[in-house]
Amino acid sequence: MNHYPKITLVGAGPGDTDLISLKGLKALAKADVVLYDALVNEELLEYASQDAIRVFVGKRANHHAYSQQEINEMMIAYARSHGHVVRLKGGDPFVFGRGGEELEYAAKHRIPTAVVPGISSSTALAGLQGIPLTYRGISESFWVITGATTAGVVSKDIYAAAKTDATVVILMGLNKLAEIVEIYQREGRGKLPIAVIQNGSLPDEKIALGTVDAIVANAKEQQIGAPAVIVIGDVVAKHEHFAIQHHKSIAV
Amino acid sequence: MNHYPKITLVGAGPGDTDLISLKGLKALAKADVVLYDALVNEELLEYASQDAIRVFVGKRANHHAYSQQEINEMMIAYARSHGHVVRLKGGDPFVFGRGGEELEYAAKHRIPTAVVPGISSSTALAGLQGIPLTYRGISESFWVITGATTAGVVSKDIYAAAKTDATVVILMGLNKLAEIVEIYQREGRGKLPIAVIQNGSLPDEKIALGTVDAIVANAKEQQIGAPAVIVIGDVVAKHEHFAIQHHKSIAV
Repeated sequence: MNHYPKITLVGAGPGDTDLISLKGLKALAKADVVLYDALVNEELLEYASQDAIRVFVGKRANHHAYSQQEINEMMIAYARSHGHVVRLKGGDPFVFGRGGEELEYAAKHRIPTAVVPGISSSTALAGLQGIPLTYRGISESFWVITGATTAGVVSKDIYAAAKTDATVVILMGLNKLAEIVEIYQREGRGKLPIAVIQNGSLPDEKIALGTVDAIVANAKEQQIGAPAVIVIGDVVAKHEHFAIQHHKSIAV
Repeated sequence: MNHYPKITLVGAGPGDTDLISLKGLKALAKADVVLYDALVNEELLEYASQDAIRVFVGKRANHHAYSQQEINEMMIAYARSHGHVVRLKGGDPFVFGRGGEELEYAAKHRIPTAVVPGISSSTALAGLQGIPLTYRGISESFWVITGATTAGVVSKDIYAAAKTDATVVILMGLNKLAEIVEIYQREGRGKLPIAVIQNGSLPDEKIALGTVDAIVANAKEQQIGAPAVIVIGDVVAKHEHFAIQHHKSIAV
């Protein structure tokens, strides 16, 4: 055990354990303590040494297992008592992962830090479904927005995004889907293609496809639940089943 | 050698060879042919079998080694003649990577495909510098835009992005930096923090920091060259050296 205190923020990727980086695995193997979130695939913990302490610090449903402040304090305490703390986070630590707050807290307590990026659900899950976020002549950009703001309301950025040509990717927005649909409809964009992907990269991955107008019904029909990623834009029509699900939804 | 034709699009990550995913490595190990781009770290080719054919299909500077059409045709030809083709692309295959066009071309020729996402420079490189793309109370979203549109002009999406609160990430935009600065200045946002990161995740990584007004001079002073990622938004001020470089640039 190495008692030199250090904190490494590691992105675990979108779910499939093979989508962690080699660097992430190496950090895990050198961890004295692993603090991991709810969206982390627990099979990844097998890459840590047998002696490593594993602590679940995630939030499940609406129950906060630990507040962010408590997690920050645990990171520091474990680093001082045990050495190398790996803070294992779903996706990438800085894409709605509060990695910034954790780095600042560690710096304030003079604990050295390192960062290992992860594959973010925001960029990976559409592509795994054959939906390119960007495509020559269709989309020159993509805009990634949280559906779960601190205030609990739909982000003002979604209102702005609905006016643009960007492919829009919304994380943690499934319970705001009806509101998001209305925002696009008010812009006259009810015919825009949209996809909702649940459990992307995992064996039980599911997708609902359709137009903005049809997606709430389609997502219900496909029984889509959280965690899910919403992708909105003309690139979604590139999905090989878009025409089929879309046509079906019109027939229904 | 397995002669069953197949094409796997693999994201190589932002540069550091350890930032490829475990799944990407496994695909490489099973490749009969690797077609790789200019932004791919060539050390990754060591993970392919000794018998695998390695073909550089990248564009360097303004010379197009192969057109996209030629690359598409090579993928198909090699899959038919040799079996498993790994199309190894910098970052993620679908973030300005033309992965969508390659999937479509393969489908048209009835070659089965698979996708292995990669860590995109757009999400990873800011975080490696301690700049969180999102931060509670500062930014609820980030917008990733190409600086190199097919037409060679600045993307219209940058004009739209400069009016929003999104953290903006521009890839392949270094030679358009002065134009991008003007777009932000016209919106009265010359004081907004901005970073330009060259060779992110590699040993020779460099960064220029400052306000929009100062960044052209600062990037020149730091001798920043391509490939570079531009990050614009208040989150950039979270970089530990922001105040230092910014203060210096005001003094100069």
